[in-house]
Formats: sequence, structure tokens, C-alpha cells
Amino acid sequence: MTLDRMTSDDIIPTLPDLHDEALAARLQALLDNKTKPLGALGRLESLALRLGLILGSEAPALEAPQMLVCAADHGLAARGVSAFPSDVTWQMVENFLSGGAAVSVLARQHGLALTVVDCGVRRDFQPRPGLVQRRIAAGTADASAGPAMTAAQCRKAIANGREVVRALPGNVLLLGEMGIGNSSAAALLLARLANLDIDGCTGAGTGLDAAGLTRKRAVLREVLALHAAAVAPLDALAAFGGFEIATLVGAVLQAAHERRVIVVDGFIASAAVLVAQALAPHVAQRCVAAHSSAEPGHAAMLRQLGLAPLLDLGLRLGEGSGAALAWPLLESACRILREMASFASAGVSQKDD
Amino acid sequence: MTLDRMTSDDIIPTLPDLHDEALAARLQALLDNKTKPLGALGRLESLALRLGLILGSEAPALEAPQMLVCAADHGLAARGVSAFPSDVTWQMVENFLSGGAAVSVLARQHGLALTVVDCGVRRDFQPRPGLVQRRIAAGTADASAGPAMTAAQCRKAIANGREVVRALPGNVLLLGEMGIGNSSAAALLLARLANLDIDGCTGAGTGLDAAGLTRKRAVLREVLALHAAAVAPLDALAAFGGFEIATLVGAVLQAAHERRVIVVDGFIASAAVLVAQALAPHVAQRCVAAHSSAEPGHAAMLRQLGLAPLLDLGLRLGEGSGAALAWPLLESACRILREMASFASAGVSQKDD
Repeated sequence: MTLDRMTSDDIIPTLPDLHDEALAARLQALLDNKTKPLGALGRLESLALRLGLILGSEAPALEAPQMLVCAADHGLAARGVSAFPSDVTWQMVENFLSGGAAVSVLARQHGLALTVVDCGVRRDFQPRPGLVQRRIAAGTADASAGPAMTAAQCRKAIANGREVVRALPGNVLLLGEMGIGNSSAAALLLARLANLDIDGCTGAGTGLDAAGLTRKRAVLREVLALHAAAVAPLDALAAFGGFEIATLVGAVLQAAHERRVIVVDGFIASAAVLVAQALAPHVAQRCVAAHSSAEPGHAAMLRQLGLAPLLDLGLRLGEGSGAALAWPLLESACRILREMASFASAGVSQKDD
Repeated sequence: MTLDRMTSDDIIPTLPDLHDEALAARLQALLDNKTKPLGALGRLESLALRLGLILGSEAPALEAPQMLVCAADHGLAARGVSAFPSDVTWQMVENFLSGGAAVSVLARQHGLALTVVDCGVRRDFQPRPGLVQRRIAAGTADASAGPAMTAAQCRKAIANGREVVRALPGNVLLLGEMGIGNSSAAALLLARLANLDIDGCTGAGTGLDAAGLTRKRAVLREVLALHAAAVAPLDALAAFGGFEIATLVGAVLQAAHERRVIVVDGFIASAAVLVAQALAPHVAQRCVAAHSSAEPGHAAMLRQLGLAPLLDLGLRLGEGSGAALAWPLLESACRILREMASFASAGVSQKDD
């Protein structure tokens, strides 16, 4: 029996299709009657339409946005797949909490509540505000020697993610992550779930040089072959890891179930959405892709999800930094719907026809 | 004697070159030591570098940002070069002032002070807060019959722009405009100053259909030929108009002279920057291109200015809407420099080498 069969009843919600032709038509009519040429606000208009559909409203309002940064370590990091040592995971958790990381700075700028989840970092943290302890183990096992996690660990991490989001207020979830080695897990998940060549899914991550990238590709080919039988989404997730990705899968499923807007960050956060979408179709309907990462597999990942990114700034940091940078555009899209005058209300003449 | 010769002494400032290798090196070192992989914040890092150089600071802070929307009518609109009637210019000025236009909504969202300048709208406005009266005439003359404005009018509009900005606080100017017919003036200025084929510079503006675009191109070819002698920047500006573009040229020159950050919007605002840069080299050093417009000539215009756009959202509204949408990215770039921890200050390990 596969892990999917075992767990799907209790941890995977069934999501209704948000497709609502009548609401979409009303939203489009509202946008078309705003005081601007038809379609002149470009992508902001399709974003407004999507936010209206997710929140089921002609006057969508984003409330109490939550930036969730899930962190964990990866056994595979011992194989030299990252340019940085594993210690950077816990050091960056400290940096998130003390306000000095990029995502801390950007969350502060935009009034995003920041929650950091220890999903399995190789270091004990003292309890403190902003840190949620949901550690499965001190890092995953080495995926080149066996599965990164057991079926029970995988199930627990997903349940953790659901529980963490259930406790958070608001109607928007922004996804962030930290974990030295996690671009390897994301590449493996993409290659397996989208049936793509692993080399094309694998990039320099935090900054491998050419020799390092060659080594990473060789390791990932080996790991993918070792777990050739891990085809079902939960089996692949358990095989490749990591705990932060599995926790994010649960967070995404819970947010989708509650019909929150999900703001997807870069390559690793998108891998969690890819798994969640494989488990529960219609997840992607609740998502907004913040940006297109410089990590080469990200474009393929977003295509797979049917999501078009808002920003293209060559970011490759993760942490949720891209989601935070795109955040004001979501707010703008809602305000356009709610606050802009119509041709009729402003007494502006329409196009000559 | 050309208009350039006549006026350059008093209304065109001489701008120092902002190139400062030592400051650039210090800014780059600060960015490289922030807790992130080298270059992982992509375009945000080059933006931070540019803002530091413009403001001459390793801790740049943007203060009291000013959105300046210059409005005027165009005599050429009578030739059917726009999808909307000229009355929309004054109607949109009313809409800006009553808070219902896209730029009003976005300026409110981001705390940008909004000033609307009547540079030559075909309608009298009652004085009111937020409106500055600097009207040259009730619209330009028809550029297909003669110059859009006289040399004296052109000089006066530039002086107006300088005077308006001189009176505004802060260290950032965001450019906006309104004027039915002004994508024609911008296309003509681009074709003449960059020596490009006019057809490639001409787009659908507010939404011409294929027949309308064919007609617009025919009219613009005719206007360009009529003013074949208007080669110097100020001569071209007087020939093609409009008053709002000339006022923006003055605004850009004054902002550059005061070393303010200039946030360029779309096709028409960029045309004003193109003229200003032709009059005073180093203007573009003070500029940030907010976005790449859907108007086909805009990419060529930005290449001409050596500016890379931050956003690419298929916008084609003008008003300063794209500048307002990009604004939070400028703020983020400054905060990254000012607030992010360094590897040393946060105790984070560096890359394995």
C-alpha cells in the first residue's frame, strides 16, 4: 500500500473548484468599467480577477497577511550539494528572528506577520516569540542512502503544517523557507512529479561553481535512480525530503482548504505547491506566483502549475523574499477593484467607436 | 539660431557626472556582505547601488516622495490619432483630484504626495488643493499644420516644470502624465531624437484598432516629414509637443539638478526623460525605470536611455501608475542596504570555498 493511500483520507482535504463563471463575469465587468482604457492595467487586472475569485468577492480585501518561513536541514547536504555549510540553516533562523534577514526586513516594511517554524533544524532553539517548534528530527536522513524521511514523519510534517496555518489569522499566506540543501530536494521533486530530466531541474542554488554544479547533478541523478519506485506524490516527498517542504505542503493544503490566498515564493516553495497540487487538484487556483527565480528549474515548475509570475528580478534567495516583494502588487490589485472610479461614477467619456 | 542656442544658458542646468568609483565599491561591499548568497537579491541589489549613488549615501533613505502628474491637450488629437476624445483629459484631471483614478488609488496606498499640474488643458479648473495651474494655452496647436508650440511657449513650459519641482519637498520625483494624443508626441520625439523609423515607435496608445493604428501611423509620418528641420531637442519638442511633456522635461531637469531620484513611468514620461537627457547628459544616471510598457516603442526608448525596467506587467495606462506600482521596490532596496544584517553582525557562516 502506498503512503498516499494510507494518509489521503485524514490529511489531504478535498478542495472545491473555485471556477465561478458568474463571479468572473461580474469582476471583469467591474474592471472594464474602471476609468482606464480596456486592459490598460495589464497583469494587475488578471491578478485582481484571481484574488476576487479566491476570496469570492467583488471587493476583495486582504487581511492580516502571514509570512510563514519553514526551516529544516537535509541529510543530503553532507554530499556537497550546497555552496554553504548546514550550520547556515540554524544561523539564518536566528537571523530571521532577530530581524536582520532579507525576509525580516521586507516583512517589516509591508506589515507582514512573520512566523518561523523549526520543522527539523539540526540545533535546539530556545522558545521565543515568532518561533514555532514543530521539529520532526534533527534534519532528514541522507536521501542518497535511503528515504529522507519515513512515511510517518512525512505524514506528521504535513499535519504540522496544517495545524500551524489553522492557528494563524487572516486570509493570505505567504510561503517562505530555509534549509541548506533544499534546492536539491525541490529539483528531485520537480523531476519526478513532472517527469522531467533532472539536469534541467538542477541549478547552482545558493551559488555553486561549475564543478560544484556538475557534482550536484551527479548526486541528484544517483538519488533519483535510487528512488525510482517513489512515483506517488507522498512517496516522492518522503524519498527526497525535506521536513520544511513537507510542512509547507501541509500549510498550503490548509490555506487552500480555508480559501486563503497563497503567495508562492521561489523554487523550493513552488516545489511544496507542486506536491500539494498533485495531492489535491485546484490548489493552484488559490495561488499567486510572486516571481520567476533565477534558479533554472523554476520556470518549468511554474508552467507545470499553470502560474504566471508577477516579478522577474533575478532573485534566488528564497526565505519568502520574493513573495514579500510582490506583496504590494496584490494589495494594489484589490484596491483597484475597490477604490477606482468607473466611467459612469467619474463622468469620464468612453472610447470613440 | 536654434531654440537650443537661445535658451540653453538659463533653463538647462549643467549636471555633474555621478560616477563615483569609491562609493560604488563601498556600496557593493556592503551588499556582498549582507546575509544572503552573493547577488541573490538580483535586480534589487543593482537598484540599491543606483539609489546609493544618486543620493550619495551608503544608507540611502527616500523622503517625501512626490508624484507629479502633468496634463495637457494636443491639437493633433483632432486628426484622430487617439481612441478617446480630448475631453477625457480634463475629465481625468477631475478624477485624479477626486481620488478615483488608478494613480490616485496607488498614490494613496503608498503615501505618495500627488500633485496635478494643468500645463495646458482645454478647460478651466477652479483652484483647489493638489492642483497647480501652469497653463501655457488651451492645448497645443495641430502639429500636422505647424509647430505644436512656439519657442517661447516651450521655454516657458520647461521653466514651469523646474519651478514646480523646486517648490516640492523630498528627494524622489515620480513622473506621471495625462493628455489625449500624447503617445503621438512621444512617438515623434523618439523617432526624431533616436533616429528610428516612426512606424516602429507608434503603437495603439489607449486602444486604437488596426484601422486606427494605420491612420495614426500615416498622420505621424506626415508630421515627422513636415518638421524635418526640427532636429535639435528643443526644436523637436516645440514641433511635436506637448505642454505636459515640456513641463515634465523641466521637472526632470530640476529634479536631476537637485539630485533627486527620478522614477520614470511609461512611454510618455520616458519621452520627457529622453528630451531632458539630450539637453543635459547624465540625467539618466538619476533615473529608475519603473516598468516596461505594452506600448511597442517603450523598449527602444529605455534602451536609448540605458535604463532597465523593474516591472513588466503589460501596463499601458500612464498617469504615473507604473511608477507608483514600482515604488515599494525602491523602498525595499534602500531598506536592504540600511537594515539587513551582515555575515559578521549576524554570526552567519560564509560560503564554503
